[in-house]
Amino acid sequence: MIRTHEAGALRTESTGQTVTLAGWVARRRDHGGVIFIDLRDASGVSQVVFREGEMAERAHRLRAEFCVRVVGEVAARPAGNENPELPTGAIEVLATELEVLSESAPLPFPLDDHLTVGDEVRLRYRYLDLRRTAPAKALRLRSEVSRVTRDVLHAERFVEVETPTLTRSTPEGARDFVVPARLKPGSWYALPQSPQLFKQLLMVGGLERYYQIARCYRDEDFRADRQPEFTQLDIEMSFVDQEDVIALGERIIGAIWRELADHEITGPLPRLSYADAMSRYGSDKPDIRFAVELTELTGYFAETPFRVFQAPYVGAVVMPGGAAQPRKQLDAWQEFAKQRGHKGLAYVLVGEDGTLGGPVAKNLSEAEREGLAKAAGAEPGDCVFFAAGNPNDARALLGAARLEIGKRCGLIDESAWAFVWVVDFPMFEEAAAAQSAGDVAVGGGRWTALHHAFTSPTPEWVDRFEQDPGNALAYAYDLVLNGNEIGGGSIRIHNKEVQERVFGVMGLDKAEAQEKFGFLLDAFAFGAPPHGGIALGWDRLVMLLAGLDSIREVIAFPKTGGGFDPLTAAPAPITAEQRKEAGIDFKPTKPAVPAESGGQAQS
Amino acid sequence: MIRTHEAGALRTESTGQTVTLAGWVARRRDHGGVIFIDLRDASGVSQVVFREGEMAERAHRLRAEFCVRVVGEVAARPAGNENPELPTGAIEVLATELEVLSESAPLPFPLDDHLTVGDEVRLRYRYLDLRRTAPAKALRLRSEVSRVTRDVLHAERFVEVETPTLTRSTPEGARDFVVPARLKPGSWYALPQSPQLFKQLLMVGGLERYYQIARCYRDEDFRADRQPEFTQLDIEMSFVDQEDVIALGERIIGAIWRELADHEITGPLPRLSYADAMSRYGSDKPDIRFAVELTELTGYFAETPFRVFQAPYVGAVVMPGGAAQPRKQLDAWQEFAKQRGHKGLAYVLVGEDGTLGGPVAKNLSEAEREGLAKAAGAEPGDCVFFAAGNPNDARALLGAARLEIGKRCGLIDESAWAFVWVVDFPMFEEAAAAQSAGDVAVGGGRWTALHHAFTSPTPEWVDRFEQDPGNALAYAYDLVLNGNEIGGGSIRIHNKEVQERVFGVMGLDKAEAQEKFGFLLDAFAFGAPPHGGIALGWDRLVMLLAGLDSIREVIAFPKTGGGFDPLTAAPAPITAEQRKEAGIDFKPTKPAVPAESGGQAQS
Repeated sequence: MIRTHEAGALRTESTGQTVTLAGWVARRRDHGGVIFIDLRDASGVSQVVFREGEMAERAHRLRAEFCVRVVGEVAARPAGNENPELPTGAIEVLATELEVLSESAPLPFPLDDHLTVGDEVRLRYRYLDLRRTAPAKALRLRSEVSRVTRDVLHAERFVEVETPTLTRSTPEGARDFVVPARLKPGSWYALPQSPQLFKQLLMVGGLERYYQIARCYRDEDFRADRQPEFTQLDIEMSFVDQEDVIALGERIIGAIWRELADHEITGPLPRLSYADAMSRYGSDKPDIRFAVELTELTGYFAETPFRVFQAPYVGAVVMPGGAAQPRKQLDAWQEFAKQRGHKGLAYVLVGEDGTLGGPVAKNLSEAEREGLAKAAGAEPGDCVFFAAGNPNDARALLGAARLEIGKRCGLIDESAWAFVWVVDFPMFEEAAAAQSAGDVAVGGGRWTALHHAFTSPTPEWVDRFEQDPGNALAYAYDLVLNGNEIGGGSIRIHNKEVQERVFGVMGLDKAEAQEKFGFLLDAFAFGAPPHGGIALGWDRLVMLLAGLDSIREVIAFPKTGGGFDPLTAAPAPITAEQRKEAGIDFKPTKPAVPAESGGQAQS
Repeated sequence: MIRTHEAGALRTESTGQTVTLAGWVARRRDHGGVIFIDLRDASGVSQVVFREGEMAERAHRLRAEFCVRVVGEVAARPAGNENPELPTGAIEVLATELEVLSESAPLPFPLDDHLTVGDEVRLRYRYLDLRRTAPAKALRLRSEVSRVTRDVLHAERFVEVETPTLTRSTPEGARDFVVPARLKPGSWYALPQSPQLFKQLLMVGGLERYYQIARCYRDEDFRADRQPEFTQLDIEMSFVDQEDVIALGERIIGAIWRELADHEITGPLPRLSYADAMSRYGSDKPDIRFAVELTELTGYFAETPFRVFQAPYVGAVVMPGGAAQPRKQLDAWQEFAKQRGHKGLAYVLVGEDGTLGGPVAKNLSEAEREGLAKAAGAEPGDCVFFAAGNPNDARALLGAARLEIGKRCGLIDESAWAFVWVVDFPMFEEAAAAQSAGDVAVGGGRWTALHHAFTSPTPEWVDRFEQDPGNALAYAYDLVLNGNEIGGGSIRIHNKEVQERVFGVMGLDKAEAQEKFGFLLDAFAFGAPPHGGIALGWDRLVMLLAGLDSIREVIAFPKTGGGFDPLTAAPAPITAEQRKEAGIDFKPTKPAVPAESGGQAQS
C-alpha cells in the first residue's frame, strides 16, 4: 500500500506516530505562512498542516482534488482548535513529505453537498460526483443491502444461480432489447426482461431454492425514474405456498431494515386485498403512512338529481381544512384531474357552520346536502372531493388526490416505514387498459395477465377462470413501502394444461404458445413441482432505504431520460464494418441456412 | 410448505414420526405386492414403502420423475435391509397418503450418473439434466464459491458495485455485441467485454475498493470452451502496488480452497516471470504439476553442422522412457507438430547404452552427439524432442509437447493444486501475432497491448517504453492453476499522458484515442489515484475446483458451439415489426438528428 493509515481513522492514540496518508485535497486554507489541507480518502478526512517554510512552499501548488501522498507526524491540535464534529477533529498531521500523485484540472462544479448543476453535467462527470459524501454513501449502502440479503438467503440454503442474458425473446409486458448474432446471421438474442422462465426451469430441475441479484432489461418509453437496465432480487422456491414466500420476503426486509435502518419490524406486515386497496386508497400500492381513506357514496347518491353522480360508482376523499382554499387552488385541482385524463374534480366545501359551498352543492337534493358531510366523514372546514364514473378510473383519481392531500396537508410522517402486502390480485386486466399504461400485451386477446402469464389462479378459480376472467383471482402478492411497489411475486402455474388455458384467455392459441414458450410447456411435462417466488426491485428499495428521491442516486452509472449515458455518450453509431460483421443486414440467399455450428437440432 | 421434512434429512431419531415429503420418484421397485420408491428432493433420497393393498394399488401408476407428495410414518428398515451407503439408509417411510403433484412423460434419457446422449440433447432438456447429482452439485458449488469470496471481500470492506451493461463500445481484444437503441435510432449500445473502464472510473471516484461478480460479453469465434457471455470476479483497488493485489488474490483463493476443497494453501504462491515461464515451460500458463522442463540448447548447437539447428533458438524437452515408442507413435508426434503450424518435431532416441537413434542424430557432429543426452538432461531410454526457430514459436511447440508428455507418461498428479503467479509480462506483443490468435487489435499499429491498453509499464520502463516496445515490461500478473489461466490483472495507468503514449505505440493517435476513450482520459485530468486490480474467470475457476473438464458443466444454461441455446433455441429471427420499432434500419433524413431526450450535451 502506498499509505500506512487511513485519513478518517486517526485518533489521539496515534499522537507521535509517523504516518503516510494518501487521498484528495478536499480543502486548502492558508493562515499566514502555514497551509492547512483537509485530506480526504474513502474513510474520512484528516487535517494536514504544512508548516511555514519549505513544506508550506511545496504545498503551495496544491489545488482542490489533487491526489496526494503525505508523510507526517500525528499531533494533538492546539487547544481550542479541536473540531468535535469530526472523528479526527482532535488531531492533525504535521507534514514532513509531500508527493503529488496526480494533479487536478479546475473542477466543472464544486464538490459540495448541494449541487447547483443539472443531472446531465453531474452524470457526465460521475467520477467526480461520486467523491461527494451522499453519492458515495448511497453506493456503499446498496452493497450492504445485497450483503445482508445474501446472508439471509445463504443461511436458508438458497443457491445463487446466474441465468443467461443472451437469450430468447420472452415478452413479459415490455419490449425486448435485441442483439444480432454474428455467428447465425439473421438471428437475434434478446436481453431478458427478468429471469422468470429460467428460474421456473430451475425449479423443474429440482433446485428448490434459487436466488439471484439479476440484471434485467426493458426497452420502455422511459417514464420518469425508469432505467433501460435495472436490478432485481429474484427468488424462486419449490413446494411452497403464498405464506412461505411472503414470510421469506419479510425475513429479508426485516434483516435489511434492522441492520441498515436501525428499524425493527415487529410481527407480520399488514396485508390488504387488492379490492380493499383500491376501494380504500384508490391504488394497488397504497401509501398507508396517513389515515385519509376514500369513501364510497354510490349508494348515498342512488337517487341523486345530479347527472354527474348518476354513475356506477361515486366516491369521495376529504381534504382536512380544505374549505379555506382560495379559488385559485381549487382551480388547480381541476388542472390536476385534467392532467390525469379526467374532466375535473368535483368538490364541496363544508363551511364552519356546516353549510355546503362550491358549485356542486346546489345540484344536490336537500337530503343529500344534509347528510353529506357525515357520509363522507368530513368536518366543518373540510373540502370533499368527488369522482364518479367507472370504479377503476374514479378510484384512481381519488387515490391520486388522496396522495396530494397527504403532501399538501403535511399528513405524511416522513420518518415512517409503512410496509403492506397487497394480495388477492385479479388474474387478468383488459388488454386495452394495459396498453394505455404503456405495457405490451403478450397475446392478442381482450384480456392480458395483470402480473404475468405464469401466475397461478387461486384454487377456487383454477377450474373456471375462463368463465369470468375479470373477477378471477391470482395467487399473486405485491410488497408496498410508503406507496411504492418494491416487490411482487406469485405462485406459478406448474401444469401444462392450466398454462395453455391461461394463454388461451390472453388470446394466444396453442401453436403460438408453443412457438413462444414451448420450452416451458415442454418442461411442465416432466414432473414440474409446485413453485412460486418473488422479485424485489433493488434500485427502488435501496432508494427508499437511503431516503433519496430518484433511483439514479443509487445506481453507479445511471442513464438519463431516453436511455442516454452522458459519461460515455452511449448509445452511439457503429461502424459499417461492425454492422456488416454482426450480420445485421443479412439476407438469406437460400431458405433455411443452417447455423455455422453445424447440424444442431433446433426446436 | 407442502412438506414437513426433507427426504435426505430423515434419520433413525425420526422413527415413529408422521412426516410429509415432496419430491421426485427416482426409482420404483415392485416386490410382490409391495412397491418401493426412492423419493428424491434437493436434500437427498428416502425410501418410501407402499404396502400391499390400497396404498400399493395407488402407487402403481407412479413412473420415473413423477413429482409426488407422500405422508407416512418413519420406521426402521427391517434388519438386513439397511443401506449403510445412504445417509437415510437405516429408515424407510411407510406411506399412508399419496398425491401426484405432477406426472412425467417418458424421459428423453435416463437420469443416470453416466449419460449416453450428447450435449445438444442434454442441454435441450437441461431442466432434467439438473436433476442428476453431478450437475446439481456443480451449481451449488458455484454458489458457494461466490459466497466464500464475498465474505472475504466484505470483511476487507470492499464495496460491491453494479456497472452498466448497456454501454459504449470499448474494444478490449474481442468484438462487441451491439444492441440497437430504439429511442435514438441509428445508435447502438455495446455489451461490455469487462467492467474495466467503469471500475477504473470508480477508482477516480474515490471508491478505493470495488468488486463485482460481473457478466461479460465477447463476440468471439467460439473456440472450444468459450461462451459468448461469461462471468468474472472483478476487483479494483486504489493506492496499491502489485504486491497488494497479489496478496488479496491469494486470500480469496486460499479461502475458496480451504472451505470448499479442504485444501490449505500454505505460504505465498510461487511466482515465475513471464520470461522464465516461457523458457522453462514454453507457456505463459505453465502446468507445474510435473517437473519436466524445456532446456535451451542454442549455445550447445552454436557451431552445429545441422542446418535446422542453425537458428536463433534451439530447445529441447525430454520424454522419459520415450525411446521405446514405436515408429507409429513417433510419426504421430510429427502430426502433433503440424497441427500446431510447425513442420515437424525433431527427436533423438537415447538408447539404453547411451547411443543416439532417430533421423536427426546422424546430422549432428560427433561432439554434439557425445554430450547431448547430458546437455538435454536425458537418461538412457528417453526421447529428446527439439524445436528450432524464433524463440516464441519454438518454445510454444516444446511447451505443447511437454504437456502431452505429462499426460502420456502419467506424470501429472491429478489431485494436485498447482497455483503459480506469472509476473513481469511484456507490455506489448506484435499486432500480427495477436490477430492470428483470434484477437481484435485495438489500434492500427504494429504493437498491441498484451494484457490490455490500460496496463501500466513498470517504473523502469515508464519513461522509455516507446524506444523498445518489444522488451518493455508491464505491471501485470496472471494467476495460473494446473496449466489454466484463472485470473489476471495489472496496475493501471492513471496518468493521461502515459495513457496517450501507450495508445500511440498501439497506433491510436490522440484524436482516435479521444473518440474511443475520451471519458477515461478526461477522468485522468482530475486527480486520478494510482490503482490496480484483478479479474478471476469464474467459470473456469469453478470448473477446476469441481474437477470438471468443461465450463459448460458449471453454467446453469450454457450455449453450445456457435452460441446456440438448445433449450430456448436462441438466437432466433425477430419480427419485421420488432426490427422496425428498434430502429435497426433507421436512415437519418436530416444530418445529426438530436436524441429524443432533448438537448443533452454529448461528448
